[in-house]
Amino acid sequence: MNPSQNPTVNLKPNDKPMPLVGLGLWKVPKDKASEIVFEAIKIGYRLLDSASDYGNEREVGEGIKKAFDAGIVKREDIFITSKLWNTNHKREHVRPAVERTLKDLGLTYLDLYLIHFPISLKYVDPNVRYPAEWSYEPDKQLIIQEPVPFRETWEAMEELMDAGLVKNIGISNTCAALIQDLLKYARIRPSVLQIEHSPYLTQERLVNYAKSEGMAITGYSTFSNISYIGLDIGDANNAPKLFEQPTIKEISSNYGKTPAQIVLKWAIQREIAVIPKSSNHDRLLENRNLFDFELTQEELHKISSLNRNLRFNDPGEYANIPIFD
Amino acid sequence: MNPSQNPTVNLKPNDKPMPLVGLGLWKVPKDKASEIVFEAIKIGYRLLDSASDYGNEREVGEGIKKAFDAGIVKREDIFITSKLWNTNHKREHVRPAVERTLKDLGLTYLDLYLIHFPISLKYVDPNVRYPAEWSYEPDKQLIIQEPVPFRETWEAMEELMDAGLVKNIGISNTCAALIQDLLKYARIRPSVLQIEHSPYLTQERLVNYAKSEGMAITGYSTFSNISYIGLDIGDANNAPKLFEQPTIKEISSNYGKTPAQIVLKWAIQREIAVIPKSSNHDRLLENRNLFDFELTQEELHKISSLNRNLRFNDPGEYANIPIFD
Repeated sequence: MNPSQNPTVNLKPNDKPMPLVGLGLWKVPKDKASEIVFEAIKIGYRLLDSASDYGNEREVGEGIKKAFDAGIVKREDIFITSKLWNTNHKREHVRPAVERTLKDLGLTYLDLYLIHFPISLKYVDPNVRYPAEWSYEPDKQLIIQEPVPFRETWEAMEELMDAGLVKNIGISNTCAALIQDLLKYARIRPSVLQIEHSPYLTQERLVNYAKSEGMAITGYSTFSNISYIGLDIGDANNAPKLFEQPTIKEISSNYGKTPAQIVLKWAIQREIAVIPKSSNHDRLLENRNLFDFELTQEELHKISSLNRNLRFNDPGEYANIPIFD
Repeated sequence: MNPSQNPTVNLKPNDKPMPLVGLGLWKVPKDKASEIVFEAIKIGYRLLDSASDYGNEREVGEGIKKAFDAGIVKREDIFITSKLWNTNHKREHVRPAVERTLKDLGLTYLDLYLIHFPISLKYVDPNVRYPAEWSYEPDKQLIIQEPVPFRETWEAMEELMDAGLVKNIGISNTCAALIQDLLKYARIRPSVLQIEHSPYLTQERLVNYAKSEGMAITGYSTFSNISYIGLDIGDANNAPKLFEQPTIKEISSNYGKTPAQIVLKWAIQREIAVIPKSSNHDRLLENRNLFDFELTQEELHKISSLNRNLRFNDPGEYANIPIFD
């Protein structure tokens, strides 16, 4: 494997490298997850971005095992991220949550474990429902919060590091003021901040702030509304389709690259890791084929100028719990 | 005094009424503060919005004393707010801070004490410099943060309630995610959230969220860029002058009210307390002369539609400490 095809960023505080391009597993159907994961590893993916909430960790684990069994990679060659769900924020629920994830993935440790949202919901026994998702009673769409201070959850995350179950810990969907507060009490600082990030939602100040505090950034939903067409989240028609923006189309044709490649490259050149999802072999290849060209500063700036603070994954909308206001 | 001229909102948890219209004391020069405060109380103001950071609390206290001495009001007739500055967030600095404010104002208790910003800066001895302002070394414009968790400061605020030094406690310039975290550990919940709020920065979701959690809202800088012209904060020319917006001008002329009155009334009808500042007798009267007309729902909506998320008081800009990102 040519290392230039898997550029990495070193995570603090322990200096572990995290690949800048990974495979996101949100929305990957159970019945295809194993195959897609195997395929992705085979063609060179070394980062898998999983979460208990995605409901497919057992199948993802099967794909990883196939890759191990086929001798394509060893455990230390791949970087596996997963995320603590909202119903497991209490100290006593954090370790069982990661243990379930590890069991499903067939691993003894994670490379990175993130708090999925700074939102604590009432605990759901995994024997009753797994993943628990948002509603306590799905039939009634009833979301019930449980008051677990963020600090309690973070300290439980730190204990997972101590126990060797996870190599790095981090946060996701967390705003600057809450990060600042976290940094005041954290014994182990977050290695990574994962946020929604696209040319329509550039989040410059949050990104710069988190970097200045030593965090690496992973951006999800890099394609913005393109990723949400047909989903019941946000209004994908609120803005022109990202890939049809003249700026994107022009740069795309100049380089002979697809709009997706241009936008992924834009993120990477800003030192933001990306985790596009695909079920399609050619697209899996395409999403990693980003290292034979460089965008100019002017092009990066032009793409960033498309920003319109357009956010899709917003629990203030779909769960009535505002965390970005 | 006709009570209808001083409508109030009842604060939780103790059911104390807070006037919906007050006098803001930011930018009121020391040498005029005493006179303006006296004048304001004489013409009917019952809420004064002070802060140690405004650097004029001693003079404000002189104005209050004049009003007491002249028999215009008694202590229980007026509602006095002040704010804990960023350099006093450590538990041991909170009580001395309010004691200094009380001494300067000549009072034995405050009606409301707010955490001015969710930002903790290195302590400055008041004998060295008071108010401490942002820079630890003003010559060098050097801002130094000190890691005091928000919880430590909030618990010290709760102790001021216990000690009877303040009748209500609250927060200011605080985003939804940090409020949510606060509510998880608060023994005494905040009575008030004070935020920048104008037709250019309506903050609907934050306002609705804080109200749903039982907080009253005070909005400052209701006139948006009009209040920042000539100041070195934000870009007052970033948007058309608020009072020159056709929507505001039209409603203003329909009612025979000034644009300022229309905008203040818009806030009050949304149940958001306002604290306009003025050094001018006629304008002090004008800013309270809001209760002989009512805006329609359609007019309220039209004014709210001017929103462009335009914020001026943003420490992410002037102090490089992002709290709204």
